[in-house]
Amino acid sequence: MPTTPEHLDTIADAAEAAAPLLARASGDERRAWLDAVADRLDAHADELIALAAEETHLDDARLRGEVARTTGQLRGFSDMIQDGAYLEATIDHARADTAPPRPDLRRLLIPIGPVAVFAASNFPFAFSVAGGDTASALAVGCPVVVKIHEGHRRTSVRTAEIVSAALRAAGAPEGSFAIVEGREAGVRLVQHPAIRAAGFTGSVSGGRALFDLASSRPDPIPFYGELGSINPVVITPAAVADKGPELARGLAGSFTLGSGQFCTKPGVVFVPAGAGFEELVVAALPAPEPATLLTPRIASAFAEEMSEAQSDPDLEILAGAATQESGAATPVVLGASAAAVRERPGALLAEHFGPATLLVAYDGDEDLHRTLRAVEGSLTATVHAAADDDIAELVALLSTKAGRVLFDGWPTGVAVAWSQQHGGPWPATTSIHTSVGMTAARRFQRPLTFQDAPAALLPDALREENPLSIPRRIDGRLQLPH
Amino acid sequence: MPTTPEHLDTIADAAEAAAPLLARASGDERRAWLDAVADRLDAHADELIALAAEETHLDDARLRGEVARTTGQLRGFSDMIQDGAYLEATIDHARADTAPPRPDLRRLLIPIGPVAVFAASNFPFAFSVAGGDTASALAVGCPVVVKIHEGHRRTSVRTAEIVSAALRAAGAPEGSFAIVEGREAGVRLVQHPAIRAAGFTGSVSGGRALFDLASSRPDPIPFYGELGSINPVVITPAAVADKGPELARGLAGSFTLGSGQFCTKPGVVFVPAGAGFEELVVAALPAPEPATLLTPRIASAFAEEMSEAQSDPDLEILAGAATQESGAATPVVLGASAAAVRERPGALLAEHFGPATLLVAYDGDEDLHRTLRAVEGSLTATVHAAADDDIAELVALLSTKAGRVLFDGWPTGVAVAWSQQHGGPWPATTSIHTSVGMTAARRFQRPLTFQDAPAALLPDALREENPLSIPRRIDGRLQLPH
Repeated sequence: MPTTPEHLDTIADAAEAAAPLLARASGDERRAWLDAVADRLDAHADELIALAAEETHLDDARLRGEVARTTGQLRGFSDMIQDGAYLEATIDHARADTAPPRPDLRRLLIPIGPVAVFAASNFPFAFSVAGGDTASALAVGCPVVVKIHEGHRRTSVRTAEIVSAALRAAGAPEGSFAIVEGREAGVRLVQHPAIRAAGFTGSVSGGRALFDLASSRPDPIPFYGELGSINPVVITPAAVADKGPELARGLAGSFTLGSGQFCTKPGVVFVPAGAGFEELVVAALPAPEPATLLTPRIASAFAEEMSEAQSDPDLEILAGAATQESGAATPVVLGASAAAVRERPGALLAEHFGPATLLVAYDGDEDLHRTLRAVEGSLTATVHAAADDDIAELVALLSTKAGRVLFDGWPTGVAVAWSQQHGGPWPATTSIHTSVGMTAARRFQRPLTFQDAPAALLPDALREENPLSIPRRIDGRLQLPH
Repeated sequence: MPTTPEHLDTIADAAEAAAPLLARASGDERRAWLDAVADRLDAHADELIALAAEETHLDDARLRGEVARTTGQLRGFSDMIQDGAYLEATIDHARADTAPPRPDLRRLLIPIGPVAVFAASNFPFAFSVAGGDTASALAVGCPVVVKIHEGHRRTSVRTAEIVSAALRAAGAPEGSFAIVEGREAGVRLVQHPAIRAAGFTGSVSGGRALFDLASSRPDPIPFYGELGSINPVVITPAAVADKGPELARGLAGSFTLGSGQFCTKPGVVFVPAGAGFEELVVAALPAPEPATLLTPRIASAFAEEMSEAQSDPDLEILAGAATQESGAATPVVLGASAAAVRERPGALLAEHFGPATLLVAYDGDEDLHRTLRAVEGSLTATVHAAADDDIAELVALLSTKAGRVLFDGWPTGVAVAWSQQHGGPWPATTSIHTSVGMTAARRFQRPLTFQDAPAALLPDALREENPLSIPRRIDGRLQLPH
């Protein structure tokens, strides 16, 4: 049932009232909240997975892995709190010998305030109610209001019940967490005065609309959107010669994984013209069994796009059916020339959410590089090369187009780690931050400096004796705790 | 002369062409560029100060200090490069024992690309052509295009000549740095496809207009604006009793410093009702000698605002002349009640750029806290209290309103330091970053992760042997170089 405007106001006001209580909570308290949520979700995994399987048509193994990833992520942020570097605690002692004399300055990162989270369709757990945005915001002490995704409503409502119960039992303030439902509620949420930042995973059109609302507020707020990504892959001639069939199998597995409903799906693959790689990919395709997509809307959009592809004079259907069954999808391999892609990049490089990929035939490095320059920003870019290929220039070019550059792998699969980067130039994301990995928390923090503060009024992170035992930068030098 | 659209395109295209060359430059090379600019500016300090004095009417001591601050800032960013932590180098080695197995992931921050800098009126050096935005962007390897401020055009053009010559002599690529001129050029610059981020210091109206342009691009870019700030100060009854005359002298000095043309000027001071502090401030005012403001436009805006204040039934003119001389300004002290401010916060708490401050009389903690909640975000918030005042709640409240909280001091004066925070909730800034201090560089970096990269293709910061000898987080643990 869509959240009424009045109910949404109550929820947002409760988040605003809770914000100072969360900001005051100790790191140990916040760790206890995250750990409690993780434990309770694990305890209810079977129930949640059964619900999600019904709603999303994703298989049990995938959903089981996703719950594990989600609870592992919550525990990862708990470890981040323990580590303490996320506070970026910095102390510059007063100096009388500078001109002008320098006061005592102490800086740390504090929670930005209530965060709106817009859940994704394709990850009912890891990018949803208790996913990375929620975990990273709660970790740094921000109340969270999640706009759930209608594609897995019951899973979301049940997850929220479990999260709320866990937070309550672990002593988190009332108002720390809530969900809202419906498109209108989302529109109101991102504009609500109580909300101080937003995280979003979804389509370019939906994300852009919300970004525009966030930016046009009387008081603009940061909107961290992960939107669209075609994830270019480049395969060199030598790589095809070396291991063409293996690469073809890898590609077939990656672009059809989860029926191609991943933001890191390899959507465009640059292959050497005339090397026969297209045929290898077609041969490597699994038997075309129709798979039900996440929602009927996603399935009909995919079917429509494939039908349009069929009538596009610049596209060739190398494998798969242009006419898709209702509600389901079978893999499609499209082909185009590099010259055509340079001519119409917007049309030919459009992202297809579903099991389709486009093979772009290039003729030599210049043809390849010129075409790559026409590609928009992506979450990932991948190179498959032979050991003695000189790819330095190619890698430099791909680095301008993506947030993660992969070698001899496939972009699907995004490890939750300190060194993960899930973000990239527009339209991949709207930000210079990541939405996966520990540094995602930085999106929901803002700096605060205390000047000449009495010791009793300093937060623990900035007290002289370092009671939290965390890394700090003191008088310009980064120092680790003993 | 305003930059023509064609000339601006040439400049922006040159910056875009230079970007990969700057990105590839070593830290030592970038240090040499910054140091060369600092040295050459210092060598030309007398000439620059003479020009700026003519154009801005700021006095020699102030301008001399500002040049020193500007070149010190350039050298500070050079030291930051040497330190290396700004790269946030992070390595997670491959692990076969996780489910799924984790690839080798290595992350660092890279330059975001060409940066547009919009210079401020009130700092002809430190927030202008070679100021903090320019220094922090060049430091991390971003080409810079500065839209100069018309208030000190000749100073800007001459500074740019010196910067360009220094960069050229130190080997920086052509296209690393340029200036443009005129309002239209600024509008075109922030929308230019080559520009990847913008820094701005100026008015709320100008900053908001440029922010809106940056956000409504087909590919939105981060716009780091430092806009408006009234910098609330709270004085407790016990503080007035303890040291009223001293505080009054401090306030009079701070709000009239540089004729009140600082973004950190204390624009509103909450004083206990009936404690006689207003009279102390009036008595502490210097003799009302008219001072020429930065530009005729600033002076006429200030005169108009004071004239409006005189006719506002909620404002009292406690000292100074409501009618200002043409082009100049004399200090004005305004008074209002806390109740009136709560009723009309937008009107009564408007920022006045010039030597004016508003004393708001409050009656007890509840009256004070309720009124403070109506105050918008600021760069700073200040408390003057006695040693045994219980101000914990007050400090928590002020921390939600500002990026820097000061105790027993005055907000004018912003040290360039690691722990500085020059930014705060809207409308103080549009960002979760600072525009002063070493961490300002983070605004112009974006993360890039290498997955399973061959060692030969890794940047030095991510090579196993740590050739740059910088702090890195390895397998989750922050480590300092030996």
